[in-house]
Amino acid sequence: MAAEASRTSEARRDAVFGRWVVFSPARSRRPTDLKSHAPANPSPGAGAAAGAPKPSCPFCQGRESECAPEIFRVPAPPDASPWRIRVIENLYPALRRDAEPPAPEEAGEGEATPGERAVVGFGFHDVVIETPRHDVRLWDLDAAGVGDVLLAYARRVRQLMEHPAVKYVQVFKNHGASAGASMAHSHSQMLGTPFVPPSVTTRLNCMKEVFERLGKCSLCEFQSKDILVSETHNFSAIVPFAASYPFEIWIIPRQHSSYFHEIDKDMALDLGSLLRTMLAKLSKQLNDPPFNFMIHSAPFGVSSSCLPYTHWFLQIVPQLSLIGGFEIGSGCYINPVFPEDAAKILRELDC
Amino acid sequence: MAAEASRTSEARRDAVFGRWVVFSPARSRRPTDLKSHAPANPSPGAGAAAGAPKPSCPFCQGRESECAPEIFRVPAPPDASPWRIRVIENLYPALRRDAEPPAPEEAGEGEATPGERAVVGFGFHDVVIETPRHDVRLWDLDAAGVGDVLLAYARRVRQLMEHPAVKYVQVFKNHGASAGASMAHSHSQMLGTPFVPPSVTTRLNCMKEVFERLGKCSLCEFQSKDILVSETHNFSAIVPFAASYPFEIWIIPRQHSSYFHEIDKDMALDLGSLLRTMLAKLSKQLNDPPFNFMIHSAPFGVSSSCLPYTHWFLQIVPQLSLIGGFEIGSGCYINPVFPEDAAKILRELDC
Repeated sequence: MAAEASRTSEARRDAVFGRWVVFSPARSRRPTDLKSHAPANPSPGAGAAAGAPKPSCPFCQGRESECAPEIFRVPAPPDASPWRIRVIENLYPALRRDAEPPAPEEAGEGEATPGERAVVGFGFHDVVIETPRHDVRLWDLDAAGVGDVLLAYARRVRQLMEHPAVKYVQVFKNHGASAGASMAHSHSQMLGTPFVPPSVTTRLNCMKEVFERLGKCSLCEFQSKDILVSETHNFSAIVPFAASYPFEIWIIPRQHSSYFHEIDKDMALDLGSLLRTMLAKLSKQLNDPPFNFMIHSAPFGVSSSCLPYTHWFLQIVPQLSLIGGFEIGSGCYINPVFPEDAAKILRELDC
Repeated sequence: MAAEASRTSEARRDAVFGRWVVFSPARSRRPTDLKSHAPANPSPGAGAAAGAPKPSCPFCQGRESECAPEIFRVPAPPDASPWRIRVIENLYPALRRDAEPPAPEEAGEGEATPGERAVVGFGFHDVVIETPRHDVRLWDLDAAGVGDVLLAYARRVRQLMEHPAVKYVQVFKNHGASAGASMAHSHSQMLGTPFVPPSVTTRLNCMKEVFERLGKCSLCEFQSKDILVSETHNFSAIVPFAASYPFEIWIIPRQHSSYFHEIDKDMALDLGSLLRTMLAKLSKQLNDPPFNFMIHSAPFGVSSSCLPYTHWFLQIVPQLSLIGGFEIGSGCYINPVFPEDAAKILRELDC
């Protein structure tokens, strides 16, 4: 008899965001039956020769001149394509690098004073093109290829960190139109913001409280092997104890570490290997679902007293269920799949 | 020249949730061009005689026996249908009223102690069927009809408040499949939870901080007439200063009031009139978009010192844009339409 058959509703709160999630298996079919009804890429290369650029896609090799300015590129071996990864400006940036950054006093005062506040939309909005080929998905690259994408993120984050008005960089990837991707060509994005975003503040406050009351970092240990999907030398992939979304995965460094951008080459290779396996598992199990992943790191310039309780991680969220008024209103999610069941399914899946 | 033509990116933080929102008009067409591509009800009565029940819909009059148990009904005049509004249990509840409620000590201790926590999935999940007719939308009712729906919400909230383990009731409505509505027949829902949901805690903390530092309730005054859409004797409808979603509307009592469920018959009639006008305006302007509305009230049993800064309101969110990794990761939203522009468009629209 499947483990899930015996489960009844439960509400859980996590130790990182302090979020309550309602696990309600009665509302769903069996966890193994949950599939995406809107596959992200029904047939990515349909109608085109494998590897051929798509005529209308500016992210394809050979169409670089149609993009916003390049920031840097990762070159390919001499006999291959001219680049493997390009980091470029977003042609339609949400925040503008040419706007006047807020003065340090203004930013500082603003963070401290509650109430309504407006600042100019200064910031950075960059795009990481993960491959020159239109028909290649991130997890089609080998571990070193995914690792190089992660190193490109880290390098760009370190560059943005140099700007005194940038308080945080949110690195994220949207895959599939219904997960917010406006381009099908495999890419990620990052936004450097002149404020610390609200979820980051909430996360730090929650992790601080855990550290002060229980004397431990929320992410340095987890209670149960039942939520473990896979482990490498440096990272654990788990379905978190209070996952907001069905089949959500967190990849967490096993050694305490506050900043993603300090990742070195060996760590990036290791993370690349685990990330591609997790994305392949989600794609296989859930019928190529639209998904998002986000890197949660510490804001720049936090005091050294914060470092013992900030621990970066990468969150992968497949988009299988719709968000309604309960979630928007309460900030509380309803998840039909228990983390232990999702972890078992993903753990046993061959990829 | 339209006001919006001169706008440049701006980041704003609101005084209720403390959320940062990036206003980025360059990413959008003109605000008046923004329409829903997925109308919620392409043709609600198609193929059926007006007023006829839909054969497969258990919320229609005459099929009451297929629903979960009724809690109460609002009767209709003797010569009309047997009921106008029914409040029933949800057939697929996310939380279960028959589960063992958490003991008061357990709940209290849990709220205070940070870190991971699990409780049984006790709670209430009810449905309000707003009309016996399948082809009637909430804003097709007259002001008194909408007012009666609001009074039914309030009555049920007062009943749930009597249960010692219920800490909060989230009242919400999902309209349209992509806003999370699984039934097309006009209805709303409420969830009575054994914990205070995270957004409620965040809201109270933010409003408390504003009150302590600036000496005022965040919602008792708003800065500018530019964001006002409409006003009645008791309520203001505004597009909030830092709206997370394009064309988001808040309906706020003009007199300070902490609890929605204390609304009286006159107030409900007044709110019903304003709510139906706002829903009609959104439907007309945005091509019948899927939407959610949520009532934000104070948790039960807060101390009297909280009452000066808690102020209930109703939030309406049309679903026009997709949520991606930036929003999920940072909790910060990108909105292509400035509140002043949305308010002007809605204010000038005849409905």
